Amino acid sequence: MLRRREVNEARERAAEILARAGVVLTQKERANIEVADCGLGQLDRVGLQLVTYVNTDRYCAKELVLFPGQTCPEHRHPPVGTDPGKMETFRCRWGRGWLYVEGEPTANIKARVPQGSEPYFTVFHEIELTPGEQYTIPPDTLHWFQAGPEGAVISEFSSPSRDELDIFTDPRIKRIPRTVED
Amino acid sequence: MLRRREVNEARERAAEILARAGVVLTQKERANIEVADCGLGQLDRVGLQLVTYVNTDRYCAKELVLFPGQTCPEHRHPPVGTDPGKMETFRCRWGRGWLYVEGEPTANIKARVPQGSEPYFTVFHEIELTPGEQYTIPPDTLHWFQAGPEGAVISEFSSPSRDELDIFTDPRIKRIPRTVED
Repeated sequence: MLRRREVNEARERAAEILARAGVVLTQKERANIEVADCGLGQLDRVGLQLVTYVNTDRYCAKELVLFPGQTCPEHRHPPVGTDPGKMETFRCRWGRGWLYVEGEPTANIKARVPQGSEPYFTVFHEIELTPGEQYTIPPDTLHWFQAGPEGAVISEFSSPSRDELDIFTDPRIKRIPRTVED
Repeated sequence: MLRRREVNEARERAAEILARAGVVLTQKERANIEVADCGLGQLDRVGLQLVTYVNTDRYCAKELVLFPGQTCPEHRHPPVGTDPGKMETFRCRWGRGWLYVEGEPTANIKARVPQGSEPYFTVFHEIELTPGEQYTIPPDTLHWFQAGPEGAVISEFSSPSRDELDIFTDPRIKRIPRTVED
Protein backbone atom coordinates (compact mmCIF):
# COMPACT_ATOMS: atom_id res chain seq x y z
CA MET A 1 0.00 0.00 0.00
CA LEU A 2 1.26 3.47 -0.88
CA ARG A 3 0.88 6.72 0.99
CA ARG A 4 -0.65 9.66 -0.83
CA ARG A 5 2.65 11.54 -0.63
CA GLU A 6 4.53 8.64 -2.24
CA VAL A 7 1.97 8.48 -5.05
CA ASN A 8 2.33 12.19 -5.72
CA GLU A 9 6.13 12.01 -5.73
CA ALA A 10 6.09 9.04 -8.11
CA ARG A 11 3.70 10.88 -10.41
CA GLU A 12 6.00 13.89 -10.56
CA ARG A 13 9.02 11.70 -11.20
CA ALA A 14 7.21 9.81 -13.98
CA ALA A 15 6.01 13.08 -15.54
CA GLU A 16 9.61 14.34 -15.63
CA ILE A 17 10.78 11.18 -17.38
CA LEU A 18 7.95 11.46 -19.91
CA ALA A 19 8.82 15.10 -20.56
CA ARG A 20 12.45 14.11 -21.13
CA ALA A 21 11.20 11.50 -23.62
CA GLY A 22 9.22 14.17 -25.47
CA VAL A 23 5.86 12.65 -24.53
CA VAL A 24 3.26 15.37 -23.95
CA LEU A 25 0.45 14.77 -21.45
CA THR A 26 -2.57 16.88 -20.61
CA GLN A 27 -2.69 18.31 -17.10
CA LYS A 28 -5.42 15.83 -16.21
CA GLU A 29 -3.35 12.90 -17.45
CA ARG A 30 -0.34 14.08 -15.44
CA ALA A 31 -2.46 14.34 -12.30
CA ASN A 32 -3.79 10.82 -12.79
CA ILE A 33 -0.65 8.83 -13.62
CA GLU A 34 -1.25 5.35 -12.20
CA VAL A 35 1.37 4.33 -9.68
CA ALA A 36 1.45 0.56 -9.19
CA ASP A 37 3.68 -0.66 -6.36
CA CYS A 38 2.17 -4.13 -6.74
CA GLY A 39 1.39 -4.10 -3.02
CA LEU A 40 5.03 -4.78 -2.10
CA GLY A 41 5.82 -1.31 -0.75
CA GLN A 42 9.19 -1.03 -2.49
CA LEU A 43 8.20 1.10 -5.46
CA ASP A 44 11.73 2.18 -6.36
CA ARG A 45 12.60 -1.44 -7.07
CA VAL A 46 9.33 -3.18 -7.97
CA GLY A 47 6.40 -1.57 -9.73
CA LEU A 48 5.68 0.77 -12.60
CA GLN A 49 3.85 3.95 -13.57
CA LEU A 50 1.20 4.01 -16.30
CA VAL A 51 -0.76 6.44 -18.43
CA THR A 52 -3.70 4.74 -20.14
CA TYR A 53 -4.59 6.67 -23.29
CA VAL A 54 -7.47 4.46 -24.34
CA ASN A 55 -8.89 1.10 -23.28
CA THR A 56 -11.97 -0.01 -25.21
CA ASP A 57 -13.44 -3.47 -25.82
CA ARG A 58 -11.35 -3.52 -29.04
CA TYR A 59 -7.87 -2.18 -28.22
CA CYS A 60 -5.77 -0.48 -25.61
CA ALA A 61 -2.81 1.91 -25.61
CA LYS A 62 -0.70 2.97 -22.64
CA GLU A 63 2.58 4.62 -21.84
CA LEU A 64 4.61 2.68 -19.27
CA VAL A 65 7.22 4.59 -17.27
CA LEU A 66 9.88 2.81 -15.26
CA PHE A 67 12.32 4.44 -12.87
CA PRO A 68 16.02 3.50 -13.14
CA GLY A 69 16.34 -0.20 -12.34
CA GLN A 70 12.63 -0.55 -11.54
CA THR A 71 11.11 -3.97 -12.30
CA CYS A 72 7.64 -4.83 -13.54
CA PRO A 73 7.29 -8.26 -11.95
CA GLU A 74 6.60 -11.54 -13.76
CA HIS A 75 3.02 -12.09 -14.83
CA ARG A 76 0.78 -13.33 -17.62
CA HIS A 77 -2.54 -12.33 -19.14
CA PRO A 78 -4.79 -15.42 -19.02
CA PRO A 79 -7.59 -16.36 -21.42
CA VAL A 80 -11.00 -14.92 -20.51
CA GLY A 81 -14.05 -16.49 -22.17
CA THR A 82 -13.42 -16.49 -25.92
CA ASP A 83 -10.48 -14.07 -25.53
CA PRO A 84 -7.16 -16.02 -25.66
CA GLY A 85 -5.62 -13.48 -23.27
CA LYS A 86 -4.19 -10.01 -23.74
CA MET A 87 -1.60 -9.67 -26.51
CA GLU A 88 0.75 -6.73 -26.19
CA THR A 89 3.46 -4.94 -28.12
CA PHE A 90 6.14 -3.11 -26.11
CA ARG A 91 7.86 -0.32 -28.03
CA CYS A 92 10.75 1.45 -26.35
CA ARG A 93 10.53 5.23 -26.76
CA TRP A 94 13.25 6.42 -24.41
CA GLY A 95 15.88 4.92 -22.09
CA ARG A 96 16.37 1.20 -22.28
CA GLY A 97 15.40 -2.01 -20.59
CA TRP A 98 15.27 -5.76 -20.74
CA LEU A 99 12.20 -7.82 -21.34
CA TYR A 100 12.10 -11.48 -20.30
CA VAL A 101 9.68 -14.00 -21.77
CA GLU A 102 9.22 -17.75 -21.90
CA GLY A 103 11.73 -19.57 -24.12
CA GLU A 104 15.40 -20.52 -24.18
CA PRO A 105 16.94 -18.86 -21.09
CA THR A 106 19.64 -16.29 -21.88
CA ALA A 107 23.00 -16.91 -20.18
CA ASN A 108 24.13 -14.04 -17.93
CA ILE A 109 21.03 -11.87 -18.14
CA LYS A 110 21.55 -8.12 -17.86
CA ALA A 111 18.76 -7.40 -15.37
CA ARG A 112 19.07 -8.14 -11.67
CA VAL A 113 16.27 -10.11 -10.09
CA PRO A 114 14.99 -8.08 -7.11
CA GLN A 115 16.50 -9.43 -3.92
CA GLY A 116 14.13 -11.52 -1.84
CA SER A 117 11.91 -12.20 -4.88
CA GLU A 118 14.10 -14.82 -6.60
CA PRO A 119 11.51 -17.64 -6.51
CA TYR A 120 9.02 -15.49 -8.42
CA PHE A 121 11.12 -14.89 -11.52
CA THR A 122 11.09 -18.00 -13.68
CA VAL A 123 11.48 -16.93 -17.36
CA PHE A 124 14.78 -15.62 -18.66
CA HIS A 125 14.67 -15.33 -22.44
CA GLU A 126 16.07 -11.79 -22.79
CA ILE A 127 15.07 -9.13 -25.30
CA GLU A 128 16.92 -5.84 -25.00
CA LEU A 129 14.79 -2.83 -25.91
CA THR A 130 16.38 0.47 -26.89
CA PRO A 131 14.51 3.41 -28.47
CA GLY A 132 12.72 2.35 -31.66
CA GLU A 133 12.85 -1.34 -30.81
CA GLN A 134 9.74 -3.33 -30.02
CA TYR A 135 8.58 -6.83 -29.18
CA THR A 136 5.14 -8.47 -29.24
CA ILE A 137 4.29 -10.74 -26.32
CA PRO A 138 1.85 -13.53 -27.22
CA PRO A 139 -1.26 -14.05 -25.05
CA ASP A 140 -0.94 -16.01 -21.79
CA THR A 141 2.89 -15.81 -21.85
CA LEU A 142 4.91 -15.16 -18.69
CA HIS A 143 6.98 -11.98 -18.90
CA TRP A 144 8.74 -9.37 -16.80
CA PHE A 145 10.64 -6.19 -17.52
CA GLN A 146 13.41 -4.16 -15.92
CA ALA A 147 14.52 -0.64 -16.85
CA GLY A 148 18.18 0.26 -17.32
CA PRO A 149 20.08 2.90 -15.33
CA GLU A 150 18.23 5.90 -16.83
CA GLY A 151 14.73 4.40 -16.59
CA ALA A 152 12.54 3.74 -19.60
CA VAL A 153 9.44 4.88 -21.43
CA ILE A 154 7.63 2.04 -23.20
CA SER A 155 4.55 2.43 -25.38
CA GLU A 156 2.23 -0.52 -24.96
CA PHE A 157 -0.18 -1.31 -27.81
CA SER A 158 -2.52 -4.19 -27.01
CA SER A 159 -5.83 -5.95 -27.09
CA PRO A 160 -8.18 -4.79 -24.30
CA SER A 161 -6.65 -4.51 -20.83
CA ARG A 162 -8.17 -6.20 -17.79
CA ASP A 163 -5.39 -5.58 -15.29
CA GLU A 164 -7.37 -7.03 -12.40
CA LEU A 165 -7.18 -10.49 -14.04
CA ASP A 166 -3.38 -10.53 -14.51
CA ILE A 167 -1.74 -13.53 -12.87
CA PHE A 168 1.51 -12.74 -11.07
CA THR A 169 4.05 -15.44 -10.21
CA ASP A 170 4.58 -13.82 -6.80
CA PRO A 171 1.45 -14.57 -4.74
CA ARG A 172 2.13 -11.51 -2.52
CA ILE A 173 1.45 -9.15 -5.43
CA LYS A 174 -1.69 -7.06 -5.73
CA ARG A 175 -1.86 -5.38 -9.14
CA ILE A 176 -4.56 -2.83 -8.39
CA PRO A 177 -2.99 -0.01 -6.38
CA ARG A 178 -4.36 0.99 -2.99
CA THR A 179 -3.47 4.28 -1.41
CA VAL A 180 -3.71 5.43 2.20
CA GLU A 181 -4.10 9.10 2.89
CA ASP A 182 -1.22 10.73 4.82
CA MET B 1 1.05 7.62 -58.83
CA LEU B 2 4.33 8.75 -57.28
CA ARG B 3 7.82 8.67 -58.70
CA ARG B 4 10.50 6.88 -56.68
CA ARG B 5 12.31 10.18 -56.15
CA GLU B 6 9.16 11.80 -54.70
CA VAL B 7 8.65 8.86 -52.36
CA ASN B 8 12.22 9.11 -51.10
CA GLU B 9 11.95 12.87 -50.56
CA ALA B 10 8.68 12.49 -48.69
CA ARG B 11 10.21 9.77 -46.50
CA GLU B 12 13.10 12.04 -45.56
CA ARG B 13 10.78 14.92 -44.82
CA ALA B 14 8.54 12.72 -42.66
CA ALA B 15 11.58 11.30 -40.82
CA GLU B 16 12.73 14.85 -40.02
CA ILE B 17 9.31 15.76 -38.60
CA LEU B 18 9.29 12.57 -36.50
CA ALA B 19 12.78 13.35 -35.19
CA ARG B 20 11.65 16.86 -34.26
CA ALA B 21 8.72 15.26 -32.40
CA GLY B 22 11.14 13.02 -30.46
CA VAL B 23 9.86 9.84 -32.11
CA VAL B 24 12.70 7.36 -32.65
CA LEU B 25 12.54 4.94 -35.59
CA THR B 26 14.82 2.09 -36.54
CA GLN B 27 16.76 2.49 -39.78
CA LYS B 28 14.50 -0.09 -41.41
CA GLU B 29 11.35 1.79 -40.34
CA ARG B 30 12.76 5.06 -41.70
CA ALA B 31 13.51 3.43 -45.03
CA ASN B 32 9.98 2.02 -45.26
CA ILE B 33 7.82 4.99 -44.30
CA GLU B 34 4.60 4.60 -46.27
CA VAL B 35 3.89 7.57 -48.52
CA ALA B 36 0.22 7.70 -49.54
CA ASP B 37 -0.61 10.31 -52.16
CA CYS B 38 -4.08 8.75 -52.52
CA GLY B 39 -3.46 8.55 -56.27
CA LEU B 40 -4.10 12.28 -56.75
CA GLY B 41 -0.49 13.25 -57.43
CA GLN B 42 -0.54 16.34 -55.19
CA LEU B 43 1.15 14.91 -52.12
CA ASP B 44 2.01 18.27 -50.56
CA ARG B 45 -1.70 19.03 -50.28
CA VAL B 46 -3.49 15.67 -50.14
CA GLY B 47 -2.07 12.51 -48.60
CA LEU B 48 -0.16 11.38 -45.55
CA GLN B 49 2.86 9.44 -44.39
CA LEU B 50 2.61 6.42 -42.11
CA VAL B 51 4.74 4.17 -39.95
CA THR B 52 2.89 1.01 -38.96
CA TYR B 53 4.37 -0.34 -35.74
CA VAL B 54 2.10 -3.35 -35.45
CA ASN B 55 -1.04 -4.60 -37.18
CA THR B 56 -2.33 -7.94 -35.92
CA ASP B 57 -5.79 -9.49 -36.02
CA ARG B 58 -6.36 -7.92 -32.59
CA TYR B 59 -5.02 -4.35 -32.70
CA CYS B 60 -3.00 -1.87 -34.70
CA ALA B 61 -0.71 1.07 -33.91
CA LYS B 62 0.70 3.60 -36.34
CA GLU B 63 2.37 6.97 -36.40
CA LEU B 64 0.78 9.36 -38.91
CA VAL B 65 2.90 12.23 -40.20
CA LEU B 66 1.37 15.17 -42.03
CA PHE B 67 3.25 17.93 -43.77
CA PRO B 68 2.21 21.55 -43.13
CA GLY B 69 -1.35 21.97 -44.41
CA GLN B 70 -1.49 18.42 -45.78
CA THR B 71 -4.93 16.78 -45.76
CA CYS B 72 -5.88 13.16 -45.18
CA PRO B 73 -9.05 13.05 -47.29
CA GLU B 74 -12.53 12.09 -46.10
CA HIS B 75 -13.15 8.37 -45.65
CA ARG B 76 -14.72 5.76 -43.42
CA HIS B 77 -13.88 2.23 -42.31
CA PRO B 78 -16.85 0.03 -43.22
CA PRO B 79 -18.06 -3.11 -41.39
CA VAL B 80 -16.42 -6.34 -42.56
CA GLY B 81 -18.16 -9.60 -41.62
CA THR B 82 -18.70 -9.53 -37.85
CA ASP B 83 -16.32 -6.55 -37.47
CA PRO B 84 -18.35 -3.30 -37.14
CA GLY B 85 -15.53 -1.41 -38.87
CA LYS B 86 -12.20 -0.07 -37.69
CA MET B 87 -12.34 2.09 -34.57
CA GLU B 88 -9.43 4.47 -34.09
CA THR B 89 -8.01 6.88 -31.55
CA PHE B 90 -5.98 9.83 -32.86
CA ARG B 91 -3.55 11.26 -30.31
CA CYS B 92 -1.63 14.37 -31.28
CA ARG B 93 2.05 14.11 -30.35
CA TRP B 94 3.51 17.14 -32.08
CA GLY B 95 2.32 20.08 -34.19
CA ARG B 96 -1.40 20.53 -34.47
CA GLY B 97 -4.31 19.81 -36.75
CA TRP B 98 -8.05 19.65 -37.18
CA LEU B 99 -10.10 16.50 -37.33
CA TYR B 100 -13.55 16.56 -38.90
CA VAL B 101 -16.20 13.95 -38.18
CA GLU B 102 -19.92 13.45 -38.69
CA GLY B 103 -22.10 15.62 -36.43
CA GLU B 104 -23.11 19.24 -35.96
CA PRO B 105 -21.08 21.23 -38.51
CA THR B 106 -18.72 23.79 -36.98
CA ALA B 107 -19.17 27.35 -38.25
CA ASN B 108 -16.03 28.81 -39.84
CA ILE B 109 -13.85 25.71 -39.77
CA LYS B 110 -10.11 26.28 -39.41
CA ALA B 111 -8.98 23.89 -42.14
CA ARG B 112 -9.17 24.75 -45.83
CA VAL B 113 -10.81 22.20 -48.08
CA PRO B 114 -8.34 21.37 -50.88
CA GLN B 115 -9.24 23.35 -53.99
CA GLY B 116 -10.95 21.28 -56.65
CA SER B 117 -12.01 18.65 -54.12
CA GLU B 118 -14.89 20.56 -52.49
CA PRO B 119 -17.61 18.02 -53.38
CA TYR B 120 -15.72 15.27 -51.58
CA PHE B 121 -15.62 16.90 -48.15
CA THR B 122 -19.02 16.53 -46.50
CA VAL B 123 -18.49 16.37 -42.69
CA PHE B 124 -17.49 19.45 -40.73
CA HIS B 125 -17.74 18.78 -37.01
CA GLU B 126 -14.33 20.12 -35.93
CA ILE B 127 -12.03 18.76 -33.23
CA GLU B 128 -8.79 20.66 -32.77
CA LEU B 129 -5.89 18.43 -31.74
CA THR B 130 -2.81 19.86 -30.06
CA PRO B 131 -0.09 17.79 -28.35
CA GLY B 132 -1.54 15.55 -25.65
CA GLU B 133 -5.08 15.78 -27.01
CA GLN B 134 -6.87 12.81 -28.52
CA TYR B 135 -10.17 11.77 -30.04
CA THR B 136 -11.70 8.37 -30.72
CA ILE B 137 -13.50 7.95 -34.04
CA PRO B 138 -16.35 5.39 -33.92
CA PRO B 139 -16.47 2.64 -36.58
CA ASP B 140 -17.94 3.43 -40.00
CA THR B 141 -17.85 7.21 -39.36
CA LEU B 142 -16.78 9.67 -42.06
CA HIS B 143 -13.72 11.69 -41.08
CA TRP B 144 -10.88 13.74 -42.49
CA PHE B 145 -7.88 15.53 -41.05
CA GLN B 146 -5.71 18.52 -41.91
CA ALA B 147 -2.40 19.51 -40.32
CA GLY B 148 -1.66 23.05 -39.20
CA PRO B 149 1.20 25.23 -40.48
CA GLU B 150 3.99 23.18 -38.85
CA GLY B 151 2.64 19.77 -39.80
CA ALA B 152 1.59 17.14 -37.28
CA VAL B 153 2.51 13.81 -35.77
CA ILE B 154 -0.50 11.76 -34.71
CA SER B 155 -0.36 8.39 -32.97
CA GLU B 156 -3.15 6.15 -34.17
CA PHE B 157 -4.29 3.33 -31.86
CA SER B 158 -6.98 1.15 -33.39
CA SER B 159 -8.63 -2.16 -34.06
CA PRO B 160 -7.03 -4.08 -36.97
CA SER B 161 -6.28 -2.04 -40.09
CA ARG B 162 -7.47 -3.11 -43.51
CA ASP B 163 -6.57 0.00 -45.48
CA GLU B 164 -7.55 -1.53 -48.80
CA LEU B 165 -11.20 -1.59 -47.68
CA ASP B 166 -11.40 2.09 -46.69
CA ILE B 167 -14.16 3.95 -48.49
CA PHE B 168 -13.22 7.45 -49.67
CA THR B 169 -15.81 10.07 -50.52
CA ASP B 170 -13.72 11.11 -53.55
CA PRO B 171 -14.07 8.32 -56.13
CA ARG B 172 -10.74 9.31 -57.73
CA ILE B 173 -8.82 8.23 -54.65
CA LYS B 174 -6.72 5.07 -54.49
CA ARG B 175 -5.55 4.42 -50.92
CA ILE B 176 -2.85 1.87 -51.69
CA PRO B 177 0.20 3.73 -53.01
CA ARG B 178 1.71 2.87 -56.39
CA THR B 179 5.20 4.00 -57.33
CA VAL B 180 6.84 4.28 -60.72
CA GLU B 181 10.60 4.02 -60.91
CA ASP B 182 12.39 7.17 -62.12
